[in-house]
Amino acid sequence: MLKGFTVPKSPFGQAALTPPPPWHYSSDVVGVEFWTDPKATAATLPNGLSPDPESNGHAVMMFLDWQFTAQDDEYLDPARYQYREAFILLDAIYRDTPVMWCPYIYVDNDAALARGWTQGFPKKLGSIFQTRTYAAASAAAAPVAAGGRFGASLSAHGQCLAQARITLRKPVQNGLSLLSRPTVLLRYFPRLSAGYQDQPAVNELAMSITDNLTVAEAWIGEGELNLPEAHGEELHVLAPNRIESGFRYSLSYSVTDLKILEDHVS
Amino acid sequence: MLKGFTVPKSPFGQAALTPPPPWHYSSDVVGVEFWTDPKATAATLPNGLSPDPESNGHAVMMFLDWQFTAQDDEYLDPARYQYREAFILLDAIYRDTPVMWCPYIYVDNDAALARGWTQGFPKKLGSIFQTRTYAAASAAAAPVAAGGRFGASLSAHGQCLAQARITLRKPVQNGLSLLSRPTVLLRYFPRLSAGYQDQPAVNELAMSITDNLTVAEAWIGEGELNLPEAHGEELHVLAPNRIESGFRYSLSYSVTDLKILEDHVS
Amino acid sequence: MLKGFTVPKSPFGQAALTPPPPWHYSSDVVGVEFWTDPKATAATLPNGLSPDPESNGHAVMMFLDWQFTAQDDEYLDPARYQYREAFILLDAIYRDTPVMWCPYIYVDNDAALARGWTQGFPKKLGSIFQTRTYAAASAAAAPVAAGGRFGASLSAHGQCLAQARITLRKPVQNGLSLLSRPTVLLRYFPRLSAGYQDQPAVNELAMSITDNLTVAEAWIGEGELNLPEAHGEELHVLAPNRIESGFRYSLSYSVTDLKILEDHVS
Amino acid sequence: MLKGFTVPKSPFGQAALTPPPPWHYSSDVVGVEFWTDPKATAATLPNGLSPDPESNGHAVMMFLDWQFTAQDDEYLDPARYQYREAFILLDAIYRDTPVMWCPYIYVDNDAALARGWTQGFPKKLGSIFQTRTYAAASAAAAPVAAGGRFGASLSAHGQCLAQARITLRKPVQNGLSLLSRPTVLLRYFPRLSAGYQDQPAVNELAMSITDNLTVAEAWIGEGELNLPEAHGEELHVLAPNRIESGFRYSLSYSVTDLKILEDHVS
Repeated sequence: MLKGFTVPKSPFGQAALTPPPPWHYSSDVVGVEFWTDPKATAATLPNGLSPDPESNGHAVMMFLDWQFTAQDDEYLDPARYQYREAFILLDAIYRDTPVMWCPYIYVDNDAALARGWTQGFPKKLGSIFQTRTYAAASAAAAPVAAGGRFGASLSAHGQCLAQARITLRKPVQNGLSLLSRPTVLLRYFPRLSAGYQDQPAVNELAMSITDNLTVAEAWIGEGELNLPEAHGEELHVLAPNRIESGFRYSLSYSVTDLKILEDHVS
Repeated sequence: MLKGFTVPKSPFGQAALTPPPPWHYSSDVVGVEFWTDPKATAATLPNGLSPDPESNGHAVMMFLDWQFTAQDDEYLDPARYQYREAFILLDAIYRDTPVMWCPYIYVDNDAALARGWTQGFPKKLGSIFQTRTYAAASAAAAPVAAGGRFGASLSAHGQCLAQARITLRKPVQNGLSLLSRPTVLLRYFPRLSAGYQDQPAVNELAMSITDNLTVAEAWIGEGELNLPEAHGEELHVLAPNRIESGFRYSLSYSVTDLKILEDHVS
Repeated sequence: MLKGFTVPKSPFGQAALTPPPPWHYSSDVVGVEFWTDPKATAATLPNGLSPDPESNGHAVMMFLDWQFTAQDDEYLDPARYQYREAFILLDAIYRDTPVMWCPYIYVDNDAALARGWTQGFPKKLGSIFQTRTYAAASAAAAPVAAGGRFGASLSAHGQCLAQARITLRKPVQNGLSLLSRPTVLLRYFPRLSAGYQDQPAVNELAMSITDNLTVAEAWIGEGELNLPEAHGEELHVLAPNRIESGFRYSLSYSVTDLKILEDHVS
Repeated sequence: MLKGFTVPKSPFGQAALTPPPPWHYSSDVVGVEFWTDPKATAATLPNGLSPDPESNGHAVMMFLDWQFTAQDDEYLDPARYQYREAFILLDAIYRDTPVMWCPYIYVDNDAALARGWTQGFPKKLGSIFQTRTYAAASAAAAPVAAGGRFGASLSAHGQCLAQARITLRKPVQNGLSLLSRPTVLLRYFPRLSAGYQDQPAVNELAMSITDNLTVAEAWIGEGELNLPEAHGEELHVLAPNRIESGFRYSLSYSVTDLKILEDHVS
């Protein structure tokens, strides 16, 4: 009996791309909140989501340095399980619920890519970097403080996809207020058999469930975001018209479950 | 209406990990044919496959430098679409048909990874290299000729998973004889919802269909293969007991279809 | 007694970045010949070189997939010694000799970087890709033939630095005619001691010596080249005004020596 | 007049591998202090250094996540200037001064490599990872506390060169006590001209000068270190006989100068 939560299934279950849940995550986040073309955001929505009449065009771009662990001290093998990520979230409505929708997301690690596909995050590979803060002071330390500046970038296949800079101004009292909407995702797996290539095997609208969601050391301030045009990508169609803020915080949560909202296959 | 054969689905269909089929491939292959522990190969087989009573334990490890194109001149964007791959194939039986089964495969590119998952190749990321042959002669040119030597290697997450060396001895008259068995694969996509994590959404035994399969400049000779033990992998369980041969050839085919042999979900 | 041609010097001489010469190289080359702003090319010239009065502004951008070997079968360890490169050469005059000058060059390998510095190639790290040609025919094979098309690209630190496309039209009878001028380089190694940071320890004008220079399967045709603006780079200052040609060939040579033209320290 | 502290020298001085000093650094360090074969450490010493009669065989292996800046907000471009490093330091004596000698060091960034060569750090490229600590608590957060565990690894060209694990036990009151000896380095740049390949252009014994050296949040405890045998490397010759401790701290300093101890060319 082959073992493993994902492929490759194997005799001992050690070869799978990711260990099974529960999955635990801690990260640092650099992000920019902005407004873009409402037609462009609406055009990214899958069946089941509609534009938010009050905030269509509202978007958040986030860059994250992640550490992951499951049940076997995976955090002690950072070469395999530490990773970096960048994604964009757009305001939308599911039935009457305000949600965020994730059309594009990039990671630099295959375990993260495999977990993401399972959840409905449409992950591609990219190179993501963010300025870090260090405990030992120097001109390179980037302290989290008023006036503190952080840069972040995303590239893929040798093209720059996003560049951000933020300047911190003040702490956020309730960091969780930055994450007030649930995230809706599309779990999707195609068929390759001739005649069925437009009839996916999996096509589900899903809602992310995050246990023990924690936000620490949240700061807000100003931001800049550049989403240059890139061949083979559509992120740049969501380039900012107006920046709302820049922010930085530390984030953690666990994943043990996923809520399926709608099954578009059956 | 979102477009794209895979995620991310997008308004213009330009963001998907891979363009839709037909997919066209050309490559150079360095490989080693060998025999390993029959219990170890049998233990990797999914439901629906059984050990080949005549050749259980027979295996081939291949390293490939690939070029890919679909309908939009993707071969002119090698930063995105050129890739390298390593995989192992094991003799097995599907009903009464001798086949090869692919338990483990590694690529260095996300488009290749996404296509592979769709076909049932359980691709993970790795770094793959093979000695190339060059038209301009020098001590570095590695001509395809009697006595010609080629090296190849696979690593992932900073661990060496495979090292091979071959020495060419003679041309193979009928190169296609090296690929006489069809390849059987497991198309598999898990569920993450609590209570369903052991009930995959997709669990199909599939057979690869390769149109216009071509083998050119095939040579055979001696081989060496080392599959060192690596944490988080099970490839090393299939380490050789005896080497049969080393080989090198050029390979091309197209993919437009996949044959589903058995659906283990329904 | 520590051994090694470069650092790290070590007890057994196995740890050095590169084995000692002779160095042997074979490659495939995709390139574009073009004309750029003569003021921009003149501004890159080191002391000892002057603009070529007949062809100042004439430039060649080349992308190369290299295989290297020294005396110990290094070509069988492609993970360490195979590499990719992109560079630009500009027409100039050394005394009365027409030469080419290399202001910028990128590789994806540390052994190549170390050898380059030793010769005077000012190598930085980059990601370089070129369309390859394969013996097994398919839509992905990119045959070397009239109408054959090849792409190439260079990026570094997540920025695109160069994109090229060529279309082959006809074979070149004498491939060596494409390499008629010797290459002049700046061997340079700074001092870090306070007060001496503008007084380099090594500052020599050098001329590359290539033994057994071979060009095979040379073709010429049309080319396109884009050198987009990039932060932390000056390659884009040399962007084309007019394209002369595109070309592709196979190249090999050996390096055992370097000619020092002028020592600017003494 | 070409500008730039290192190659490539360029008209605007923007293309050089590294901006000129002052250079400012902040990092997190995971390390292991150990004892190895005294003959092996003695064999790595360059002319001018001798084994420490009291502590020959004493060594420290360190893994560092670095952030760098010079005068132009380089810390806001982490894709180019953030980097990871691993190196080994060995006890030695320079004249009557106890020092540490750095025989082998690896980084994942070309700017760091170029600065290192200038100082005498014999840097090669590698992939380095360490467990990080995060402010947002989860099973993945790796808090700096008694019992806290951290992993680290180094690989190069697809081979594992070092794996470490540490367990923190108690804070260190005076973190600077962990860095009590100065570091001695070999500045070395070869000649390639035939007949001079064993007569380097630069061959200086140098002592690192670190301004504003700061150690923060230092903890000590237990450690494990594995230095597996690797082709093309000699780090494994220094594998531990006995582990002294594991440690973790934050580190910062600036570099504006280098002290040349001896010039072995003149």
